Amino acid sequence: MKNLVILGSTGSIGTQALDINKRYRVYGLSCNTSVTKLVEQVRQYHPKVVAIHDAGSYGVLRDALDGLDVEILVGMEGLIDLVSRPDVDMVLTAVVGNIGLEPTVAAIQAGKDIALANKETLVTAGHLIMPLAKEKGVKVLPVDSEHSAIFQCLVGENQSDVDKIILTASGGAFRSFTADQIRHLKANDALKHPNWQMGPKITIDSATLMNKGLEFIEAKWLFDVSPDDIEVLVHPQSIIHSMVQFKDGSVKAQMGVPDMRVPIVYALDYPTRHANLVPKLKWYEMGALTFEAPDLERFPCLALAIKAIKEGGLMPTVLNAANEVLVEAYLKDRIGFYDISRGVQWALEKGSKVSNPSLNEVLLADQHTRELVKYEFGLRNTL
Amino acid sequence: MKNLVILGSTGSIGTQALDINKRYRVYGLSCNTSVTKLVEQVRQYHPKVVAIHDAGSYGVLRDALDGLDVEILVGMEGLIDLVSRPDVDMVLTAVVGNIGLEPTVAAIQAGKDIALANKETLVTAGHLIMPLAKEKGVKVLPVDSEHSAIFQCLVGENQSDVDKIILTASGGAFRSFTADQIRHLKANDALKHPNWQMGPKITIDSATLMNKGLEFIEAKWLFDVSPDDIEVLVHPQSIIHSMVQFKDGSVKAQMGVPDMRVPIVYALDYPTRHANLVPKLKWYEMGALTFEAPDLERFPCLALAIKAIKEGGLMPTVLNAANEVLVEAYLKDRIGFYDISRGVQWALEKGSKVSNPSLNEVLLADQHTRELVKYEFGLRNTL
Repeated sequence: MKNLVILGSTGSIGTQALDINKRYRVYGLSCNTSVTKLVEQVRQYHPKVVAIHDAGSYGVLRDALDGLDVEILVGMEGLIDLVSRPDVDMVLTAVVGNIGLEPTVAAIQAGKDIALANKETLVTAGHLIMPLAKEKGVKVLPVDSEHSAIFQCLVGENQSDVDKIILTASGGAFRSFTADQIRHLKANDALKHPNWQMGPKITIDSATLMNKGLEFIEAKWLFDVSPDDIEVLVHPQSIIHSMVQFKDGSVKAQMGVPDMRVPIVYALDYPTRHANLVPKLKWYEMGALTFEAPDLERFPCLALAIKAIKEGGLMPTVLNAANEVLVEAYLKDRIGFYDISRGVQWALEKGSKVSNPSLNEVLLADQHTRELVKYEFGLRNTL
Repeated sequence: MKNLVILGSTGSIGTQALDINKRYRVYGLSCNTSVTKLVEQVRQYHPKVVAIHDAGSYGVLRDALDGLDVEILVGMEGLIDLVSRPDVDMVLTAVVGNIGLEPTVAAIQAGKDIALANKETLVTAGHLIMPLAKEKGVKVLPVDSEHSAIFQCLVGENQSDVDKIILTASGGAFRSFTADQIRHLKANDALKHPNWQMGPKITIDSATLMNKGLEFIEAKWLFDVSPDDIEVLVHPQSIIHSMVQFKDGSVKAQMGVPDMRVPIVYALDYPTRHANLVPKLKWYEMGALTFEAPDLERFPCLALAIKAIKEGGLMPTVLNAANEVLVEAYLKDRIGFYDISRGVQWALEKGSKVSNPSLNEVLLADQHTRELVKYEFGLRNTL
């Protein structure tokens, strides 16, 4: 049996992955600070090793695991050590934020296949990650529904036959509102997203279409296409999870009920499929499938993301960092909806033009942008 | 360059194939009686060999080809000789009716790959053709939009992960009429089919859903699935050309503008795709995609076809032969719409239960059923 490490095992993706995994022995788990949940997981899944990112939580974890046969690692070095162990075959990176960057690079360096659920990895460092993965011959398997759909549509096809990646978007909670209405809508108005159960940050990103912008950037790196060959298509029913158009005019789509467990287990079990996990589509109950163009005027964040990846360098990092700060402020009712795109645009204009930045430059630009945006928008003391 | 033979080169599929083929040298062409068209094709495509099925047309063809460097073969032996030549790599069987059976078997025996546009081949002899193709290691590539779609959705996937083949149907010209209305509709009412340009016989088969029934039987053989694992889904827009549902709940669909050239060239160029042949889908103009269950009461032919393939043996041959006679009579306003299904049902009840029939038994049952149905329905002198 092959060995799996899950970075961020106590989060939503990590928890679901542990629940449905049948293929791998659980070799290692990690979390940031969720000691109680991690201890539960150790008792249930018996990993050989755990890593806790937050050094301050080490003592509590050690005491809680006293008497159990499990090795404990600490900090970023701990995460890197864990994913690099010779017995590890697959690393699921399900941490949130740029904590995922360094261990993902380390795992690829060590030749481990990656199931990638951490958005920042490709958004900020796709130019480093994908060539490295190619060099080391490791697979990078996407763990979100859109990229998994695209990956599935590409299985067995030739890259040279691809005409366009079609990334579908639900359109978010504010899809049917006018700009004047949206201007006054609060984060709470967005937090009932129609199709997917998601956390607050991603729900706001979905409402601004920044989520689709970040996925656009990820798609560019994952599938090695030009930004000009990616199209965003609003499909409010979220039944089609994304598509690929080929040069002969054929389009392949992947569909299904909206359930994150499908792309999670697809990445883990690839190239086989996991039977009977979720209900099948009910064709006669689901109503019509419709398509709309994304409105880049009401939702400027998508245009900003496309601009950022076209410029390349540190711009996607700046985009992502500024967006995180501003969405957090919006969630706390500190700023309005259109302050998010305004702030991101401001940050992109301030961002330094560095081509092919190193991992360190990426991490510094991320930190720098956060500080800058907080300062500019008077958010230093409130976030 | 590889060598192509087209059986039925003067028909719609054959003509389109010649027009778009870039991959193959045109080695051989055949027709039944269309001498003038065949001569034109000889002048344009310079085949080494032609075969004319109708022996009575041989003299005219020989005179018309006088002075041209082309060998002429005649009759069924001529077709079989042509496809069996050592230089031939691929045979496109685009003849109409059961003329296609024997040369297809001969081509497979000789190890040639098959692009299959002849419906009768798999409907009546799938139990012979597919095991033979497997034994000889030849590819059978479907040349109609539904089976091409399914084939494309299966590329790169494992057969064991398939849960269900979903065959989409436009629903035909009478989809939105009640049974009482349909009862009185004439062939002419059907001859404006909404989505595809087709000949009269197939347009009526589309209106009765027999076309989908025949495709159901073909799908069973092509994709090696049980009839219980094939579902027919009415999708009036004909944008999705068919789908495959996998065991993990994922559905893959192949879509495109309705244009027969796409599946024709897909079969010829597989595994690569032919660029820029047809317009791309226009997402914002095409409206909603909808799905309905097929109504087996208003359209009993579909249920009869499913019954025939579940019974197996000669039943699909009987179904197809009876249907051909009855559709011809309906096209001539000799019988009503529901006489088609009534006549097919009658023929199935009369049909002899022979399991695993030989090619000869298939051909005899076909002939016998036609005579029987003509006699029973008083059609002997009018068809």
